[in-house]
Amino acid sequence: MNEHADILLTHAHLFTMQGAGVGYIADGAAAVEGNRIVAVGSTADLTPRFQADETLDATGCAVLPGLIDAHMHTPWAIARGVAQDVAHWMQKALAPYSRHLTPEAALAGAKLNVIEALKAGTTTMVDYTQPVPGWAEFFVQTGVRGRLTPNINALPRGGMAGWKIGDLYPFDLDEGQRQINAAAAFARDWHGAADGRITVMLGPQAPDMLPKDQLLQVKRLADRDGLMIHMHVAQGDREINQMVKRFGQRTPAYLQELGYLDNQLLAVHLTEATDEEAALIAASGVGMALCSGSIGIIDGIVPPSHAFRQAGGMVALGSDQAAGNNCNNIFNEMKLTALFNKIKYRDPTVLPAWEALRMATVEGARAIGLGDEIGSLEAGKQADLIVVDLAAPNLSPVMAAPVRNIVPNLVYAASGHEVRDVMVAGRLVVRAGRVLTADEAAIQAEAQAQAGALARRVAADPVHREMALMGAMAAGQL
Amino acid sequence: MNEHADILLTHAHLFTMQGAGVGYIADGAAAVEGNRIVAVGSTADLTPRFQADETLDATGCAVLPGLIDAHMHTPWAIARGVAQDVAHWMQKALAPYSRHLTPEAALAGAKLNVIEALKAGTTTMVDYTQPVPGWAEFFVQTGVRGRLTPNINALPRGGMAGWKIGDLYPFDLDEGQRQINAAAAFARDWHGAADGRITVMLGPQAPDMLPKDQLLQVKRLADRDGLMIHMHVAQGDREINQMVKRFGQRTPAYLQELGYLDNQLLAVHLTEATDEEAALIAASGVGMALCSGSIGIIDGIVPPSHAFRQAGGMVALGSDQAAGNNCNNIFNEMKLTALFNKIKYRDPTVLPAWEALRMATVEGARAIGLGDEIGSLEAGKQADLIVVDLAAPNLSPVMAAPVRNIVPNLVYAASGHEVRDVMVAGRLVVRAGRVLTADEAAIQAEAQAQAGALARRVAADPVHREMALMGAMAAGQL
Repeated sequence: MNEHADILLTHAHLFTMQGAGVGYIADGAAAVEGNRIVAVGSTADLTPRFQADETLDATGCAVLPGLIDAHMHTPWAIARGVAQDVAHWMQKALAPYSRHLTPEAALAGAKLNVIEALKAGTTTMVDYTQPVPGWAEFFVQTGVRGRLTPNINALPRGGMAGWKIGDLYPFDLDEGQRQINAAAAFARDWHGAADGRITVMLGPQAPDMLPKDQLLQVKRLADRDGLMIHMHVAQGDREINQMVKRFGQRTPAYLQELGYLDNQLLAVHLTEATDEEAALIAASGVGMALCSGSIGIIDGIVPPSHAFRQAGGMVALGSDQAAGNNCNNIFNEMKLTALFNKIKYRDPTVLPAWEALRMATVEGARAIGLGDEIGSLEAGKQADLIVVDLAAPNLSPVMAAPVRNIVPNLVYAASGHEVRDVMVAGRLVVRAGRVLTADEAAIQAEAQAQAGALARRVAADPVHREMALMGAMAAGQL
Repeated sequence: MNEHADILLTHAHLFTMQGAGVGYIADGAAAVEGNRIVAVGSTADLTPRFQADETLDATGCAVLPGLIDAHMHTPWAIARGVAQDVAHWMQKALAPYSRHLTPEAALAGAKLNVIEALKAGTTTMVDYTQPVPGWAEFFVQTGVRGRLTPNINALPRGGMAGWKIGDLYPFDLDEGQRQINAAAAFARDWHGAADGRITVMLGPQAPDMLPKDQLLQVKRLADRDGLMIHMHVAQGDREINQMVKRFGQRTPAYLQELGYLDNQLLAVHLTEATDEEAALIAASGVGMALCSGSIGIIDGIVPPSHAFRQAGGMVALGSDQAAGNNCNNIFNEMKLTALFNKIKYRDPTVLPAWEALRMATVEGARAIGLGDEIGSLEAGKQADLIVVDLAAPNLSPVMAAPVRNIVPNLVYAASGHEVRDVMVAGRLVVRAGRVLTADEAAIQAEAQAQAGALARRVAADPVHREMALMGAMAAGQL
């Protein structure tokens, strides 16, 4: 008993995610000192070795690396559920809410979404949005690991009124430059904040939403400052149409020509990429953020993550935005990813549970560029972990042999509410299902108040009459 | 205040499911007397009208008809998570567990599964299994609505040792007859029990698992006693192969010729039915039990429910068995059903949220033959309802207009743990998320003990070495 630990977690079904599988340790333990894991092993080995200030008993629980959500738009929780079951969801369902979104509403949505995800075991959130005051501060406050990405595009600031689906977008070069400058300033302020728990990525919204010069300018900035780029790529037929019309190329070829395809890029969606394009992108070292639930609801499409991984690419899971998806929960994304791919290939052996779990943890960490810091439970890495109660009826019973049933149940049966404790950077931020670092009830109430006001603004704007769901409202289907 | 109610539920977002949509009533109320709903309307209308023994405040909650699970095998919760990500799941993964399943283990699994489903808002469970002592009694005890179906097949009692995939099954006519007689006796004992809350269906396992004479005998028995038939139909390529080899016909044509296709049949799965066969079956008045999660995991297939409904058929949702699916949760099935069909047709407008909700309630009730009694909240029907807390972060915020977001969030974001209260036949059986009619912890502990013993029996049987998942175990993937 000669080593000190702040916290010694004991008696867990420990999934370290080390090695090529799930790295299971029976009756496992982990010692945490400061913000890092200092040892992982069996309870029998670690208990005599460490003198711990606190022991966290995980009997009957699975302990995993904290889950990674590689692509979120947290403010959109403010309009959860307003934009599904329609074609052209962005223009025909979300646009009026977007037009009337205030910074206060956006912040209220972001807070709600962070709480939702955190309670469901997500410890790292890669959040893409137009920054509003208080956004980054909330990540600092709650203790969540944030990889924050300020939105950059060159679309007219006042909105796209008058733009018709199929037309080229108008560009506003001054607006594009302003947003690039703002993102660079945000990165200077926040990259590395909170002992490195907050990092920043640069976020050109999509290759069709910036002129070529400005897209290249972002790449130079990223290379200069050692920042990764987080960008929607081949995210829909709308984008591909814009690319072909304006640049004469589909997105992957265009990005390759511009030198964008390297391991500093996190490419989101790839909805419209062919298998060949996905393989090309993967082979360049790019990471992929796969948003199965969102793209399933919005487009009815299963993106080519299987081809991407076959080509050696690393895939992370993302929950995207609650206005369409409608939840931000990586347990949900693991399940949908496994199932959608089985269906796509009509083969139950495609994308087994353990692969989905790796995408949500160790593989996802690599895809977003944090593979050295998070994604597995091993000495030297950040102490980001979750404790999942396997006594929940839907995760019971536990069988150890000849087949261990825990991983399949975590992927196919868990919903996230079984998460008991959450630790980020060595700090317990959720205990017994309660967030310790924020006032959940106040956040829910503020979101409700802001959403009510937002809905009233949308209702007062005649443009709402063109929303696709107004017919469903009139027919009593909502 | 001249009418009496046992319970008056008030201030709900009430989804009655009356009419062609979701039958929404703002600030809604429902009055319950005995086991029936006596009035549904606005809180303002019902409060002065009823003198209630108890008022149940549902402010901030959605209230819906209790969800209907049209196809379960509750005992298999005892082996949750042992049979996914493999081909030939029944033979290559489940078979050793099946061989070593004892009545005690089966009962422990059934109890666990009923509790799991009940807590997630399922009030009617159509359960298909080999009856074991205590099974029906547990439905009576917990207050759940049970539609119990004893399994009938003519397969050799001692198991299928020596049978090879692709060979015709051996039939044991005596065993078939014994099972028919046992099912008839079970129906005499239980059909209509507990004030009609327990009903019985006859369950020939599948058309390929009984000789023609015995299948016809079951149909005559069902017609004579006014029982519905609950049968797996076109459930896999295995079945179709058996049918063509033995009877020279695919399943739908065979059943049509035998006079099986009428509104007294609940046809489960239809995995291998073509769209044309599905339409034929639907047009005959047959109800369909669609098990999206199970068939997705087991086969990577989306059954033809869309074609079935286009032909006018009624579809109910089923969760099947936890050894493969791995959870028994109709919120999960609603979400998967909507998403899988969008993907199948590559169209986000296919199977909108309200249709999934109808399949889980009013349409499902019709499919299983209980349309007059349950499935909607209206005066005269059984008081089966659930109260869902919309203050959960993943269901917040609530927007009322111009687009009401509750139904999409219930289908795409809810996981079932937001269910606060559950009423079946006028009796509150779950309050504040706790089951009032059974000891949850004791049930979980018994299931864990039985599962441990079952796993030890399987491990001691050399046949376990041929299980498909042994490779994944050896590779550290489980």
